[in-house]
Amino acid sequence: MATFVDRRSQAPCTLTLPRARRHWRHHALECMAAGACMALLGAGAQRPDPLPSWNDGPSKKAIVNFVERVTTVSGSDFVAPAERIAVFDNDGTLWCEQPIYVQLAFALDRVRALAPQHPDWKTTEPFASVLEGDLKTALSDEKGVLQMMAATHTGMTTDEFTRIASAWIATARHPRTNRLYTEMVYQPMLELLAHLRANGFKTFIVSGGGVDFMRPWTEKTYGIPPEQVVGSVGKTKFEMRSGRPVLVRLAEADFIDDKEGKPVGIHRFIGRRPILAFGNSDGDQQMLEWTAAGSGSRFMGLVRHTDAAREFEYDRKSSIGRLDAALDEATAQGWTVVSMKDDWNTVFPK
Amino acid sequence: MATFVDRRSQAPCTLTLPRARRHWRHHALECMAAGACMALLGAGAQRPDPLPSWNDGPSKKAIVNFVERVTTVSGSDFVAPAERIAVFDNDGTLWCEQPIYVQLAFALDRVRALAPQHPDWKTTEPFASVLEGDLKTALSDEKGVLQMMAATHTGMTTDEFTRIASAWIATARHPRTNRLYTEMVYQPMLELLAHLRANGFKTFIVSGGGVDFMRPWTEKTYGIPPEQVVGSVGKTKFEMRSGRPVLVRLAEADFIDDKEGKPVGIHRFIGRRPILAFGNSDGDQQMLEWTAAGSGSRFMGLVRHTDAAREFEYDRKSSIGRLDAALDEATAQGWTVVSMKDDWNTVFPK
Repeated sequence: MATFVDRRSQAPCTLTLPRARRHWRHHALECMAAGACMALLGAGAQRPDPLPSWNDGPSKKAIVNFVERVTTVSGSDFVAPAERIAVFDNDGTLWCEQPIYVQLAFALDRVRALAPQHPDWKTTEPFASVLEGDLKTALSDEKGVLQMMAATHTGMTTDEFTRIASAWIATARHPRTNRLYTEMVYQPMLELLAHLRANGFKTFIVSGGGVDFMRPWTEKTYGIPPEQVVGSVGKTKFEMRSGRPVLVRLAEADFIDDKEGKPVGIHRFIGRRPILAFGNSDGDQQMLEWTAAGSGSRFMGLVRHTDAAREFEYDRKSSIGRLDAALDEATAQGWTVVSMKDDWNTVFPK
Repeated sequence: MATFVDRRSQAPCTLTLPRARRHWRHHALECMAAGACMALLGAGAQRPDPLPSWNDGPSKKAIVNFVERVTTVSGSDFVAPAERIAVFDNDGTLWCEQPIYVQLAFALDRVRALAPQHPDWKTTEPFASVLEGDLKTALSDEKGVLQMMAATHTGMTTDEFTRIASAWIATARHPRTNRLYTEMVYQPMLELLAHLRANGFKTFIVSGGGVDFMRPWTEKTYGIPPEQVVGSVGKTKFEMRSGRPVLVRLAEADFIDDKEGKPVGIHRFIGRRPILAFGNSDGDQQMLEWTAAGSGSRFMGLVRHTDAAREFEYDRKSSIGRLDAALDEATAQGWTVVSMKDDWNTVFPK
């Protein structure tokens, strides 16, 4: 009988013999790999850069120093692995949110796909404008947008919605670059997520977007599993259909994970205060304040969209992802403001 | 540079050199331990029993077989580690819920502690009865119980409530055994949780109890971290107090994680369908149905309180943890019904 510490739960666990054998074989290979690797590198060799897409500068330095401080066992800023919670906004922080939110692009595509079943949409706003290709009119009225969201996101079971969202995200492409939306993610942030996980952090998404829209693809795209995605939630209803239980999506918001909602969502879904938070807009301000208010070492970061050539340039006056009050607070509080143009040598994965 | 697969995210990650060295040392020790252990056991030796508090019988056999089936890579029932989600009810499934729910015992103690600040409670029900020691009257009216819950669970910040609940659970004792409540947990279930985690499962609590009451102690008691606890939730409000953000607990329920609420909670908080679920009452029926309705191999378990001598004997007519319709369904569907008296040789940790 072999007793190890389970890496996930940190609890001691007893392994049965066949598992112990597999464990041993697995570790033997890892030990050999690590040994060979160290031999090749030699003593005193430089560490490999975990963040190659980040230019040297204050932002990168702040990130690297923070991770080093909270993981140094002998240091005063050490944080136990279980408390290394990192939260990331999604739209505009992990992937591109321009020219419109991806989830809105999904809703528009669904309106077009569902139109044959709704002949009245040809003469009913905002659907008529969508079908005529007049997005400006279609998106001009908030109530109309909510109507479109309800028409495309509710009425089906949760399993059906997952299938619809999964099928769409597998092929939908960004209008400017013609790349898959899941390739319109920021390479420097992928490196940051991996660097944090390699240092014992648990990474979460805390987004205003719909949680059921994100969960089908976050694990493959970001390495963040469904149970670590916090987002806006619609009400669902448990029903038996032909003896099988289903959850039906209702046209009623249950929780909006934005602004003051973000700390509420973090408390409700995670139940620990993060030690690192990254956002890009005023919608992330309260999440950053909540993170900053904890004791011990903290990291608060904002991505600033400053690169018209490689991505988009917007902040103080944008209707999507407006960064104004949060930028002022970041400056006043000394949070890390990342300039896409200056801090990132690569924006999207090659 | 050494590249490993991160066990938590399953994503490849790059280790910096000092980390690789630690990693190597750590694994070398583990390899030695596993090797020594196998040598001592010898070829063909019996596997150590991961569930020593379970008597041999159909319940134990069903559990062991299920775990073996879903973890056998070459088998038709294999389930990828990321999908090995196991959910457990808490009251009556992981710990003792008699003679009253532990959270209610907490509320009663808080009424007594707060009484000096509320002189009017001496003449106001249900508080007057609590203070006079007449629990039968105090708990006879559901509205009164809700009033007590509001008076003891809301009005403070989330941080304050965590401190209060943590301090209480550290010393509060069961009225019959005089043991700490956190020692009134079921040893066979602790072994089951550990066995599942040792086999790549992620274990969650899905309880009707308040999530903020459970989170302070579940990690230490069950090895289940706060972010894997799903429960009932009260509304909270984000506020700035002297420039510091707080979340204030409001006297309004936001989500009741019981009966039809359990599949809703599982979908909302976990976002994957479990492959194993354990409950003990009709409040768990829909969670078990939801688990059973997935494709592939599934395990549905019910703990039946049949042991008056070592714990309590109750089910079909109990006001706490009534097991009636769910027991009929378990029998009809062939779910595993665990009899405390017959299936467990130990109930509480020694």
